[in-house]
Amino acid sequence: MASSYYPKLESTFPPDEKLTAATENAIIFYDASNFEIIGQLPDTETYTRLPLGAQNKVRQEVWNLSQHSAGISIRFTSNSSTIKVRWELKYNNHLSNMTPIATKGLDLYAYRDNTWQFVGVARPVEGHQNEAIIIEGMPANAQEYLLNLPLYDGILSLEIGIDSGAYVDKPAQKIIDTAHPIVFYGTSITQGASASRPGLTYPAMIERQFNKEVINLGFSGNGRFEKAIAEYIMTAQPSLVILDCTPNSPADTIRKNLPETIDYITAVNDTVPIILVESIIRDYAFFKKDDQNVSGTMSFINEQNNALKAVYESKIKTRKNIFYIVSENLIGEDHEATTDGTHFNDLGHYRAYQRFREEIEKILRSL
Amino acid sequence: MASSYYPKLESTFPPDEKLTAATENAIIFYDASNFEIIGQLPDTETYTRLPLGAQNKVRQEVWNLSQHSAGISIRFTSNSSTIKVRWELKYNNHLSNMTPIATKGLDLYAYRDNTWQFVGVARPVEGHQNEAIIIEGMPANAQEYLLNLPLYDGILSLEIGIDSGAYVDKPAQKIIDTAHPIVFYGTSITQGASASRPGLTYPAMIERQFNKEVINLGFSGNGRFEKAIAEYIMTAQPSLVILDCTPNSPADTIRKNLPETIDYITAVNDTVPIILVESIIRDYAFFKKDDQNVSGTMSFINEQNNALKAVYESKIKTRKNIFYIVSENLIGEDHEATTDGTHFNDLGHYRAYQRFREEIEKILRSL
Repeated sequence: MASSYYPKLESTFPPDEKLTAATENAIIFYDASNFEIIGQLPDTETYTRLPLGAQNKVRQEVWNLSQHSAGISIRFTSNSSTIKVRWELKYNNHLSNMTPIATKGLDLYAYRDNTWQFVGVARPVEGHQNEAIIIEGMPANAQEYLLNLPLYDGILSLEIGIDSGAYVDKPAQKIIDTAHPIVFYGTSITQGASASRPGLTYPAMIERQFNKEVINLGFSGNGRFEKAIAEYIMTAQPSLVILDCTPNSPADTIRKNLPETIDYITAVNDTVPIILVESIIRDYAFFKKDDQNVSGTMSFINEQNNALKAVYESKIKTRKNIFYIVSENLIGEDHEATTDGTHFNDLGHYRAYQRFREEIEKILRSL
Repeated sequence: MASSYYPKLESTFPPDEKLTAATENAIIFYDASNFEIIGQLPDTETYTRLPLGAQNKVRQEVWNLSQHSAGISIRFTSNSSTIKVRWELKYNNHLSNMTPIATKGLDLYAYRDNTWQFVGVARPVEGHQNEAIIIEGMPANAQEYLLNLPLYDGILSLEIGIDSGAYVDKPAQKIIDTAHPIVFYGTSITQGASASRPGLTYPAMIERQFNKEVINLGFSGNGRFEKAIAEYIMTAQPSLVILDCTPNSPADTIRKNLPETIDYITAVNDTVPIILVESIIRDYAFFKKDDQNVSGTMSFINEQNNALKAVYESKIKTRKNIFYIVSENLIGEDHEATTDGTHFNDLGHYRAYQRFREEIEKILRSL
């Protein structure tokens, strides 16, 4: 039996739930790489997260995931009344615990009243080729924009479409400082599962809050505190490194990999603050029989967190500026903040963002 | 080019992110309708939301949407170490602003320490036939369960699978009072867009908070304060009626439909509390040129809310127990609580739940 696809059921939404114009102005498309790309390490190919040379230096899974555009954004300015995007996906991925908008769509923010305010989304259709109006019918005033790329897919090409009489250009105002980015190195949660759109991950919220470029090195299932990744992190001359790999790293992996990763970061820059983050207890661990040999159980996770704590306590003796976020209450204690027991939903990302924000403010005050 | 589908990318999650057993016990399946179904009006077919006789009395769109299982749950008790489900979907719907888990999957709660705690999800595969382990490896203790059905699809059949040596039965403890349910009548937002799983809609959270059956009559794009729906609502002898149709109802529709709907409810029961709820200002309305004739703009929405307020003020003169929830701050003022500018994400549903909870507690105190 044929499946219905996205547009079908959405046609049951009333007209006011759609943004399609009856008559559309002529739209001119510009390659997005003409503007400013933020959220990338130095020397990466357009919209990817590790330099080409990394292909032989990191595990194949990490390399593949580095082709996902998680955390990458376009900064531009325009006075167009319509903002449209056209994008070609590398994979056309589908995930049961993600919205297609988050997996392979985009969302847009504009800078208003000294804050980044959500404007709208580009909804993917089914297929690699996509085209969507994010917003139309705006007054033709210049605005600064931040366009967030897909979290769990890759971008082969991306174009920004504006009214034929309007302009689009590199940012007129800097706003987001890109000199020394904040780098998150983590798991699927960091990469953005299960935020409902690209701008709602906690790294993206940190970027908007502090107006500081954030590089998202979340590698789904493959965040393992690896020194090979730290080498790339340090090429960005980061102002802050957040090591958020615990959920993907068994205790042994933490004990083996994390000390040398911290030592490497310290060797390059012995003052850059490092934040270590515990794993939350998965919602299902509260129900399953405990068995320290089975990953995802209470004891297994406690053992991961204990290993993290032990590395922290050993390193803090000789290295300043190491900070530690415990998992308790990181996403609340009501068990309503994951989509599937593991991955933060929007409530989880928001709560985690609040904790990270608090910790980062504390660090900034201490510097 | 062939699309990957759900299971493909998820295989990049590490083993601890999956709940699949290496060796699976023999599982015996039982038809879910053997247990207790909550969230349905009287005289409805299994897992649907309006009685068969309504097919010729409501608009076709409403009838079609009534076949979606939004807000319907199964209450059961079991001592099984594994809970598995097998379900056949009516439509196999896809929505760009919903996770497949929310659209056509299920989630499970268990009653622990006097609260409903999230256990896990049944992830849909691609196709009408689905089978998924929600949780396994639990101690074999009796627990009370609440299994929430898909929000944007229909259920042709549903079976609960348990260990061959275990039992599954109707609830051993009542817990959720079903005598006089709370009925929500509303839009796509009420139906559950864009919660990340079925249990995270604000009506579902209200049900668990108050342990009071909730019937979800959210009809995507078709919530219009219609008296025909009120007639079905009142067959449930509700303890509270929430009329939450404003986002789908232009001001004229509100002025035309709402007074007679309130009058009908009053004629049947002049003491049942009624809550009227304003529409939020859509996130995109803050950017679009204002035009009171274009739906979704600031003036259009204000006009909808003004019409609602006028009906409220007129009715409250002669009818006690009408309450009013303003949209200001309903889902916060940071514009981060929708997935697409219209539909509440998990943060939006959670914030709305808190407001509804507060209002309902106030009403309960006043009775």
